[in-house]
Amino acid sequence: MFDFDTIKETIKQGFKQYMFPVGLILFQCVFIVLYAVHAKYGYEIDNNSTVIKTPNTPPDQGAVEYYYSFFQDVHVMMFIGFGFLMTFLRRYSFSSVSFNFLVATFVLEWAILVHGYVVDWDSETKSFSVTVKNLLQADFVSAAILISFGAILGKTNPAQLVILALVEVVIQIWNEHICVTYFCAYDGGESVYVHVFGAYFGLAASYSLQHKREVESPKESSSYASDIFSMIGTLFLFCFWPSFNAGTAFGDGRVRAITNTYISICASVILTFTVSALVGKGKEEIIHIQNATLAGGVAVGAVSDKNIGLFGAMIIGSLAGIISTLGYKYLLELLKKIHIHDTCGVHNLHGMPGVLSGLAGIVVASMSWKSLYTENLGPSCLSGGEHRSAGTQVGYQCAALLLTLGIAIVGGLLTGIFLRLPIFSTPDNDSYFDDSLNWHVPKDFVAEDSALGSLIKNILPNQMQLEEIPNEIALNPTTLEVIQETTFRH
Amino acid sequence: MFDFDTIKETIKQGFKQYMFPVGLILFQCVFIVLYAVHAKYGYEIDNNSTVIKTPNTPPDQGAVEYYYSFFQDVHVMMFIGFGFLMTFLRRYSFSSVSFNFLVATFVLEWAILVHGYVVDWDSETKSFSVTVKNLLQADFVSAAILISFGAILGKTNPAQLVILALVEVVIQIWNEHICVTYFCAYDGGESVYVHVFGAYFGLAASYSLQHKREVESPKESSSYASDIFSMIGTLFLFCFWPSFNAGTAFGDGRVRAITNTYISICASVILTFTVSALVGKGKEEIIHIQNATLAGGVAVGAVSDKNIGLFGAMIIGSLAGIISTLGYKYLLELLKKIHIHDTCGVHNLHGMPGVLSGLAGIVVASMSWKSLYTENLGPSCLSGGEHRSAGTQVGYQCAALLLTLGIAIVGGLLTGIFLRLPIFSTPDNDSYFDDSLNWHVPKDFVAEDSALGSLIKNILPNQMQLEEIPNEIALNPTTLEVIQETTFRH
Amino acid sequence: MFDFDTIKETIKQGFKQYMFPVGLILFQCVFIVLYAVHAKYGYEIDNNSTVIKTPNTPPDQGAVEYYYSFFQDVHVMMFIGFGFLMTFLRRYSFSSVSFNFLVATFVLEWAILVHGYVVDWDSETKSFSVTVKNLLQADFVSAAILISFGAILGKTNPAQLVILALVEVVIQIWNEHICVTYFCAYDGGESVYVHVFGAYFGLAASYSLQHKREVESPKESSSYASDIFSMIGTLFLFCFWPSFNAGTAFGDGRVRAITNTYISICASVILTFTVSALVGKGKEEIIHIQNATLAGGVAVGAVSDKNIGLFGAMIIGSLAGIISTLGYKYLLELLKKIHIHDTCGVHNLHGMPGVLSGLAGIVVASMSWKSLYTENLGPSCLSGGEHRSAGTQVGYQCAALLLTLGIAIVGGLLTGIFLRLPIFSTPDNDSYFDDSLNWHVPKDFVAEDSALGSLIKNILPNQMQLEEIPNEIALNPTTLEVIQETTFRH
Repeated sequence: MFDFDTIKETIKQGFKQYMFPVGLILFQCVFIVLYAVHAKYGYEIDNNSTVIKTPNTPPDQGAVEYYYSFFQDVHVMMFIGFGFLMTFLRRYSFSSVSFNFLVATFVLEWAILVHGYVVDWDSETKSFSVTVKNLLQADFVSAAILISFGAILGKTNPAQLVILALVEVVIQIWNEHICVTYFCAYDGGESVYVHVFGAYFGLAASYSLQHKREVESPKESSSYASDIFSMIGTLFLFCFWPSFNAGTAFGDGRVRAITNTYISICASVILTFTVSALVGKGKEEIIHIQNATLAGGVAVGAVSDKNIGLFGAMIIGSLAGIISTLGYKYLLELLKKIHIHDTCGVHNLHGMPGVLSGLAGIVVASMSWKSLYTENLGPSCLSGGEHRSAGTQVGYQCAALLLTLGIAIVGGLLTGIFLRLPIFSTPDNDSYFDDSLNWHVPKDFVAEDSALGSLIKNILPNQMQLEEIPNEIALNPTTLEVIQETTFRH
Repeated sequence: MFDFDTIKETIKQGFKQYMFPVGLILFQCVFIVLYAVHAKYGYEIDNNSTVIKTPNTPPDQGAVEYYYSFFQDVHVMMFIGFGFLMTFLRRYSFSSVSFNFLVATFVLEWAILVHGYVVDWDSETKSFSVTVKNLLQADFVSAAILISFGAILGKTNPAQLVILALVEVVIQIWNEHICVTYFCAYDGGESVYVHVFGAYFGLAASYSLQHKREVESPKESSSYASDIFSMIGTLFLFCFWPSFNAGTAFGDGRVRAITNTYISICASVILTFTVSALVGKGKEEIIHIQNATLAGGVAVGAVSDKNIGLFGAMIIGSLAGIISTLGYKYLLELLKKIHIHDTCGVHNLHGMPGVLSGLAGIVVASMSWKSLYTENLGPSCLSGGEHRSAGTQVGYQCAALLLTLGIAIVGGLLTGIFLRLPIFSTPDNDSYFDDSLNWHVPKDFVAEDSALGSLIKNILPNQMQLEEIPNEIALNPTTLEVIQETTFRH
Repeated sequence: MFDFDTIKETIKQGFKQYMFPVGLILFQCVFIVLYAVHAKYGYEIDNNSTVIKTPNTPPDQGAVEYYYSFFQDVHVMMFIGFGFLMTFLRRYSFSSVSFNFLVATFVLEWAILVHGYVVDWDSETKSFSVTVKNLLQADFVSAAILISFGAILGKTNPAQLVILALVEVVIQIWNEHICVTYFCAYDGGESVYVHVFGAYFGLAASYSLQHKREVESPKESSSYASDIFSMIGTLFLFCFWPSFNAGTAFGDGRVRAITNTYISICASVILTFTVSALVGKGKEEIIHIQNATLAGGVAVGAVSDKNIGLFGAMIIGSLAGIISTLGYKYLLELLKKIHIHDTCGVHNLHGMPGVLSGLAGIVVASMSWKSLYTENLGPSCLSGGEHRSAGTQVGYQCAALLLTLGIAIVGGLLTGIFLRLPIFSTPDNDSYFDDSLNWHVPKDFVAEDSALGSLIKNILPNQMQLEEIPNEIALNPTTLEVIQETTFRH
């Protein structure tokens, strides 16, 4: 009477189809309740502008004048910058730019909550304030998650992305909180807490999600137009990186963070063009220009507000440009062989330059006359960092880098294993890097792949098989192979 | 001797061809004269920064520090945001982005004049000042006109657009002036005065312009690339919407406007992805992501600077995302059936969320402890709003919403009827959504439609007809049909 | 035993391939040393905000609040604005956007150094400071070089671009230094020192580089998509032009610079649409919209902070729109005939409107009650400009314009001759406007040119020649011609 198998199949199908939207709406409801119970507006408590501008006093947290334009620059980096940077995949651009959009907004809502509970919680009023600075900090958190997204881009469905974001936000904020509050380790441009964390979390998740299967798809490639779209992302990230690194700095530190980042990222642009031409026999690779050019912004981050000298920033940026470009050229394939598939090459853009930045932080800490580390220690620092010796600070900087690496890798591995559960119906190799899995695509979507594939598809009535191609446009065997290769499964 | 018919035809043809540029240059001359006679620079009268930052005093109108970065964000929204949002039509992208550009600049020039005469007129000096705040306000006015433009996109010629802009600016500014000065109705983010007004004006104009004719064109569709171009617009609108809603707010109201808008628009992004997947059987529609994601920015507008709580903003944004997505899915077709063709779906993105915002404004007014409505009443308010009861304010908020709806609909209908005059040579259904009507297009323009069409066009000498296709590439009858369908009229 | 010819050829080949990256890395090393020896951070010396805002005192050079958001706008203009504006060439978009990126960053590093040595050198400490204002000024210098780049776009290799940048930066900064410090000639928006200089330097370089050879290539054209990419550049340049012209102005001058530029560039947009339709028989040309619309920003530059009246700014912008559009329509071809090939039409967008701006500066100087020229004379002015008569100032304004023209043309001619040396292996006509010369291009790159070319390329095994096309897809002679025309050399 009841066909249990059919019912089971229907439920399974329905679950697969609706898990994502239903889950999303449930999270949204929970978030709304939490905001209602615990979040309140943070105002500009002290409106006296002279206080804001004293070099060694951090400005009022809600100050629109002080944070808003930096926040907007970083906001553009997250949505336009990361979003378009990822559109380079010729058949996955809808997903790249849109899921970046979805994940970032989801993270913003969630990060403000988690940050409120972990960092800003006021136990007297049982609430936390949301100021313009919090919006900026939520954008920083979203950077970490979007970097991880870059590693698994094209190999996951949106449900998995949301779960990954949910988990990673909590771990990222706790890791940063421990490093900042207990270790008093500085990282002005969030190179360690955001870039290193995001990259290695993503790589670990990619590894365990892939579970040693090959990722091999002709769709994992760019087209001329998609590469140009990607440059929109690159250039906005380039332009606004000084705002990212200087966002939460103040006074003279902010001036240094701006100029150091500006000059460091310029240096990495130049070295990227250099190395790309050297390893490419005089020809450039657009993927290097899209990504490695930005490595200088990452690599100067941890010490961007320190007195490293403009030449120091240039050296850091130059090194970053070199290792990042070489990473794209040689390391990407090597990692793939040990089953760490890294779609956007986040290891080269964020991972290695981030570690470089962490090392630069250690070096600067060892030069106590340069590090100025006490200057930037906020009231949240619990261990009395201001009385430390240079050696102690070196130790804490090392600890922060290693802890971040460890937590990111373990967290990523576990998250990846969790996301491999059958409930998430991970896409298989054939659906990788393909918008048609998650989108109603425009008519010309398939046609893009090959004029010939499109020709055949347009000419033949839909039901007709390749074998039945009319003689009038008969094709020789070689041709037929090409067609079969380039025409997609209907 | 004189062939009157030929002369008449020549004049008619010349008129059709040159009415637009000649009209434009005449308006420009008139504008220059008006600026020469009545406009003067508005300076930063009071440069004392402490005055600017007192929470309950509006800042000096010309303050560069206070308005300029918000103005620039809004400026980008108008030109990049709206401009690229409309490029989704695969054969009308030149017109979308360029006529948006033309209309917006025309409106900026004209709106500063009209605003000067209506709102800022100084009867002693017989002049008005132009400050940075005025530039920002002119951008707000242009938003209304660009929204209306979205409703009639692809179905009008530039001459009609300019006339529509000319009329609508005057009506929009008068409507807002009445509601603000006489009703003292608040609408911080201009959701009613700009979004509701612009949407219903445009829909009414579309209705009367169409005059119950069908709009049915295969060209009304997107391509993969044009959809990605459109996302550029979406993301810039998303990022800078807090600046739109907070542009003219000040003090704590500005902090609230920023945070409320930020969180509300995030909520609408998430609900758009949710609802799009629900109604699309697990697959997303890019048109929803391009548009409905932004509904939260519109819907929170009227109350963005009020103490609605962050959860309140989230609820408003979530509702907006839901109704906007459902609108795109179901309502668009229904409206088309009653001859209201809405190219960009402005009813779903601006109309309904705008009305929702108006209703939210009424609800907030009824909660006098929340509304803070006296705080934002500028010196222009004539009716002594500060002594009102909550109930009175509710009434005035209702009145403002209804008056705006009424004026927009009647104004739009009449403007549409006027634009249907033969003098404007309205394009017909075959020239809809087609750049070649108004542009010298690049060679690949036609080819885009189908690889096959392009193939045929390239292969055949220009004079050759389809019947004469050489046997060597002869095609079976089915194919021929496809060709005839996909190849365009030369 | 030794085959000298082979060795010679190998060296020559290696030199050709590696000169560019090796040269770049050498320059970078030299720059790092110079920064290490002579550059130091410039701090916000005086943090008292009331000083910053006094209308007639220039703000502290390092003030983040005062310069940073203007700097960011200009930064976006350089990288997104110029970068995407140049992507209009359908087969040269990688190079346009990326070499713009490379050249701009190279110039930023170099211009800060040269500006430091020439203008900001502190002979006591043997060093110069780098402040946020310096970053902004370096961006101005890069504008000049990117304008020159526009004239020679597609006809040079990156090695030549870097050398051109190296030389031009020095000449540009010296020219501006002489005009500002010794002539006390004002040019708030850098219309003469940047736009006129950059345009005529580039045109002269193009002339001598071309050496009377024809530039004739079917690749010098746009596609539908590349024209839309180009509009991204146009619209960001449009939006942020007020920041360019007002960047280094202060007080009331900054308010005037913003409003004048805003209204002038709007006027040029409208006149561009007008004239383009007039000369195009009712149809617009996208190249006019991409470029001539911006002429108003250039033309108002020199007098943007002066009291010219908003109507004055509108008249200047309108004239600029007219001459620029007419230039694109008629002059471009004429110049080409006298062997001045101008890829982006910089003569029309920057050259003529820049000269117009210089003339406007002379007219304003003659009206001493309007010119306010003493107000903007910084402490760097050596000749006591504040005691001059209007007539003297007119003379100095003329001198500045003529000197700039002269230095730009002579400098450009000599640089072009130098770049023609065999060592630089100038590309020849066949490699013009072609990314495949300098880039590893994606698979669809060639295919873009014609669906048929792509068809043939995909069908045929790589080794097969056109003559061997199998009979199954045999084509008639006419077709074969088309194929040969549209298929590219493998």
